Amino acid sequence: VGDSSIITLTTDFGYKDPFVGIMKGVIFKINPLVRIVDITHEIVPQNIMEASFLIEKSFKSFPHRTIHVVVVDPGVGSQRRPILVSAEYHYFLGPDNGIFSCIYNLSKSFTVIHLTAKHYFLPERSLTFHGRDIFAPVAAWISRGVDINNFGEHIRDYVTIPVSVPKMTSESVIEGEVIYIDHFGNLVTNISAHHVEGLSKHDPHAKLKVIIRDIKAPLKTHYSEAADEMLYSLIDSFGSLELFVNKGNASSIFGINIGEKIRVTLTK
Amino acid sequence: VGDSSIITLTTDFGYKDPFVGIMKGVIFKINPLVRIVDITHEIVPQNIMEASFLIEKSFKSFPHRTIHVVVVDPGVGSQRRPILVSAEYHYFLGPDNGIFSCIYNLSKSFTVIHLTAKHYFLPERSLTFHGRDIFAPVAAWISRGVDINNFGEHIRDYVTIPVSVPKMTSESVIEGEVIYIDHFGNLVTNISAHHVEGLSKHDPHAKLKVIIRDIKAPLKTHYSEAADEMLYSLIDSFGSLELFVNKGNASSIFGINIGEKIRVTLTK
Amino acid sequence: VGDSSIITLTTDFGYKDPFVGIMKGVIFKINPLVRIVDITHEIVPQNIMEASFLIEKSFKSFPHRTIHVVVVDPGVGSQRRPILVSAEYHYFLGPDNGIFSCIYNLSKSFTVIHLTAKHYFLPERSLTFHGRDIFAPVAAWISRGVDINNFGEHIRDYVTIPVSVPKMTSESVIEGEVIYIDHFGNLVTNISAHHVEGLSKHDPHAKLKVIIRDIKAPLKTHYSEAADEMLYSLIDSFGSLELFVNKGNASSIFGINIGEKIRVTLTK
Repeated sequence: VGDSSIITLTTDFGYKDPFVGIMKGVIFKINPLVRIVDITHEIVPQNIMEASFLIEKSFKSFPHRTIHVVVVDPGVGSQRRPILVSAEYHYFLGPDNGIFSCIYNLSKSFTVIHLTAKHYFLPERSLTFHGRDIFAPVAAWISRGVDINNFGEHIRDYVTIPVSVPKMTSESVIEGEVIYIDHFGNLVTNISAHHVEGLSKHDPHAKLKVIIRDIKAPLKTHYSEAADEMLYSLIDSFGSLELFVNKGNASSIFGINIGEKIRVTLTK
Repeated sequence: VGDSSIITLTTDFGYKDPFVGIMKGVIFKINPLVRIVDITHEIVPQNIMEASFLIEKSFKSFPHRTIHVVVVDPGVGSQRRPILVSAEYHYFLGPDNGIFSCIYNLSKSFTVIHLTAKHYFLPERSLTFHGRDIFAPVAAWISRGVDINNFGEHIRDYVTIPVSVPKMTSESVIEGEVIYIDHFGNLVTNISAHHVEGLSKHDPHAKLKVIIRDIKAPLKTHYSEAADEMLYSLIDSFGSLELFVNKGNASSIFGINIGEKIRVTLTK
Repeated sequence: VGDSSIITLTTDFGYKDPFVGIMKGVIFKINPLVRIVDITHEIVPQNIMEASFLIEKSFKSFPHRTIHVVVVDPGVGSQRRPILVSAEYHYFLGPDNGIFSCIYNLSKSFTVIHLTAKHYFLPERSLTFHGRDIFAPVAAWISRGVDINNFGEHIRDYVTIPVSVPKMTSESVIEGEVIYIDHFGNLVTNISAHHVEGLSKHDPHAKLKVIIRDIKAPLKTHYSEAADEMLYSLIDSFGSLELFVNKGNASSIFGINIGEKIRVTLTK
């Protein structure tokens, strides 16, 4: 806190409109010395789950006490509440629409505060842009050291949305799905490194097979280990099982989208 | 001014080329402590009016004395003048091609300076990139506290371009048009909240109707108040009348583009 | 070095994923006071030469001792080495895959260090994201003043890739090619101002002709000097010969792509 504190921004606002710049203006009016980092503004419009997934995968790279503003907010202006989540030594600000479900799943102990202290909001508030009118100013006030208990009341009935988790359908089979496709067309799944390790613990001499549709995607350790244009898999930098084509776009080449099922099997 | 001053950037340069990064390098060479905020770099190439509209809607969210660099500059290298506008306790830098027309319309009292003091420009200047060679260094020098009268001469023959304004075609009808389409496909019009309020003052018991082509777009207060996939309207965060589809792209669903006429009528 | 030092980022990561924001988090964890500037994240995926060209054209606009992180890295996780180049009073960090070839060509004297001092890397390293795990933390440590010789061993067998240079096919003809197309569709060639000047020195009274396919692109000094929708040429802000259409997209109108040959001839 002070001039080395950081506010991150994650939204579905895109880069064409001035909305993100306007939020930064509001923040700097209150704390001219804070650092602001864009995580992404290209969340698919209204895709709350995508934002939830990405902030969970990103926040740990930032210092403790970083303030993460996450705004994908189709219900802005309605009864949905603005909230502040304190978890894992980080702060998260956004609408109470389930956007922090992945954080709730991850964290053993967290608190959720309903933002009601209107004197920390902008005095004139729209019903369509709480990023500017509520979340930006509250983030700036937190960065200036205001105690989070001043912003509202602790709540327990925060909204959650179901987070996709893989299933062990037998002792030797995990079934998951593609949950994110990155800029390169790589297919990120909900199966993590520790799921894969858990599977192979049963029999360290057995072989792991990664299968999507009827395509085998052999496990590699890095992208350029896969020489040809076929589908391969690896544990990526998120710690997730990812399918890829070396120097190619796996999503477009194989026509695979979010939600596509994937299986990891252990065979002798 | 000093290490808490802010420079904003609004251009049609896009994000693919290094032009914006280069301008930031030039600024930091002169003032390493200034804050730089991107408003947008996705102005439609050469669309001076779009830049004029967006900076007018954005600047007030920044602190007084912020320096706004706005570069949409098809005439770069020709006789068109580089100018500095001081208005509403903010500074604006850009080409004298009408890009500040919306600021001129808004402000009761402003001054325009033709930038002629070449010792504040880069020593080697191109005829194609005044963002780097003139506007970035002048912005940086202003942020360091140089008095704006040092940069050139006051002028009165600055260029203006016509700003689209709605017409009252009768006591109960306003005719305006779509002037901006945002990332979500929402249709921003040139009809503002105070136009709408002015209309309903005539008869507070009468009903407002918003009509585009032959489609009625009922007035709501926020997006999620509109449940189905039809066209609705509201007063948006700019204070403008806006047409939208809840969780949908109004522009692409209804094929509506910039310039499309819109009518607000008062009926008993 | 200190709170006024700058780190620039140039990658093919795009703006959709959180990868760039994550790198900034890692940097700020180590040096909360450094400035970070995005040059571009829209390098064509895996296009090492494009990154090499753009960083060469950009770095000089930044102050001496700026640290430029350039990550287009299809071989990440393989035996390719992470390197640090010290050249022209700037630092460059990236994979040893030829990405600094344009810098090597430009600089009379430079040193290349193979980054091997793992205590400056993140403790847990992936095989797929060295931008986060190696280049971001090393950049941050350099910005804090760590001597570059502490990061590894000087090497001489760094990788280079061929940089496209124009040929003088006779005393009065230069043959080059389009090497970059910018956001506006302007066609940047590998022929520079000094090549063109060298040609006209032979006979200052002769006329220069710029020809692509069978189209003549008359030389102008700035964009708006060309009034109609034909193809023209000028020396651009990079100091390169560039073909353009005034207020139009030369690449899409004429269907010209990277690699297209161009000729400059001197005729009486």
